Amino acid sequence: LSFGAVALPGIPEVRAGDDLAALLLAAGIELAATDVLCVAHKVVSKAEGRVRSLVDVVPGPRALELAATGDRDPRHVQAVLDEADEVVRATAGVLICRTRHGFVCANAGVDRSNTEPDCVVLLPENPDGSARALRAALGCAVVITDSFGRAWRMGQAEVAIGVAGLEVLDDWRGRHDGGGRELAATHIAVADQAASAADLARRKDSAEPAVRLRGLERFVLDHDGPGAAALVRARGLDLFR
Amino acid sequence: LSFGAVALPGIPEVRAGDDLAALLLAAGIELAATDVLCVAHKVVSKAEGRVRSLVDVVPGPRALELAATGDRDPRHVQAVLDEADEVVRATAGVLICRTRHGFVCANAGVDRSNTEPDCVVLLPENPDGSARALRAALGCAVVITDSFGRAWRMGQAEVAIGVAGLEVLDDWRGRHDGGGRELAATHIAVADQAASAADLARRKDSAEPAVRLRGLERFVLDHDGPGAAALVRARGLDLFR
Repeated sequence: LSFGAVALPGIPEVRAGDDLAALLLAAGIELAATDVLCVAHKVVSKAEGRVRSLVDVVPGPRALELAATGDRDPRHVQAVLDEADEVVRATAGVLICRTRHGFVCANAGVDRSNTEPDCVVLLPENPDGSARALRAALGCAVVITDSFGRAWRMGQAEVAIGVAGLEVLDDWRGRHDGGGRELAATHIAVADQAASAADLARRKDSAEPAVRLRGLERFVLDHDGPGAAALVRARGLDLFR
Repeated sequence: LSFGAVALPGIPEVRAGDDLAALLLAAGIELAATDVLCVAHKVVSKAEGRVRSLVDVVPGPRALELAATGDRDPRHVQAVLDEADEVVRATAGVLICRTRHGFVCANAGVDRSNTEPDCVVLLPENPDGSARALRAALGCAVVITDSFGRAWRMGQAEVAIGVAGLEVLDDWRGRHDGGGRELAATHIAVADQAASAADLARRKDSAEPAVRLRGLERFVLDHDGPGAAALVRARGLDLFR
């Protein structure tokens, strides 16, 4: 088996209301039905107008309190709280939150990099929906990605926050190895692994938000599939609280 | 940017004392100094004799107690406890442990699949050392991998447990995006992403333990580098306890 990853040439700065699928197609790279296009969420969020000016944000008492402990901009903290269902942990360096989608990540995915001054980029409202719309327009599988920290490992890895047309979890329960033993890895997080693979093909500072993965057709579906929602651990199944 | 992933043709069943590097080279795939070879730990462990027969394992009281709650083989549980520094969480389904290396994973990495009946495969004693030895013999960067669950996401993803010759964490602190803002992802877990990418190029049941990644030369070092030890979160920095 083999696959290849190629970053699409840079696309112009994306603004609210832009037709992102058209911009990606204009990059001039061939997309086959069996390809997987991984797209950094930031361009999706920007096209969808999920950018918030901090000028309009009035921090409440909790934001002021949390900001004081970490030398943070209280308006940024308020924007984070507005996107969070729950603050899972607050340290001086980072607010780990559960987003409304169920993702657990730093600052509820609210990000100050790659934006206008005094603006933050939010996660898409419905990343699986965004992925489905892109899939319909592009005709290939789509994974929308973000960089998440991990509870027990240093560094961030790119994960899938929206998926359409790709198997998300490859279920190996009941399948066996050569020796007839059940396999230890029972659900392989294919979509997260695709997101991580794509991240290796682009430089963060190069305005290359999209990477095409070719050779993963055995995971490509003829329908949208369950989406990244299938990667969310239900609150009660959290391995750590 | 782009890269490609190719699974090496299958290698024969590995036994204790086998020269794994020679078996991998005999697979007949070209390995350049700028390539990254990702190797599933199981063949490394087997070559190093890190296989334990459960016939010789006498479960102690704690193993018997933990086994009773989960309908598990108490000898397997004892083998897990023998590899664990700490049981981080015990549920009916799984024992999440911190291994002696500092990795947090299910069953301390002690695995019953792909082994002889009544045997378990342990993690290598010193996976970074194993990776360094393979790098010296193969002349390319080496990542030894295993499938780990994640605290907040469903499914397992392949991660790096031993690394030689590859940048492990790409440090972006202080680097800036086009707009002059600091980047949100400050340490990209390159080695984990390489492990995940490689996993997409092989089938779990196909006895293809090794995958060559070509095109990642910007992360390849001219020395062993810090190894996967750099991916271990110090106990006090755990995002969740």
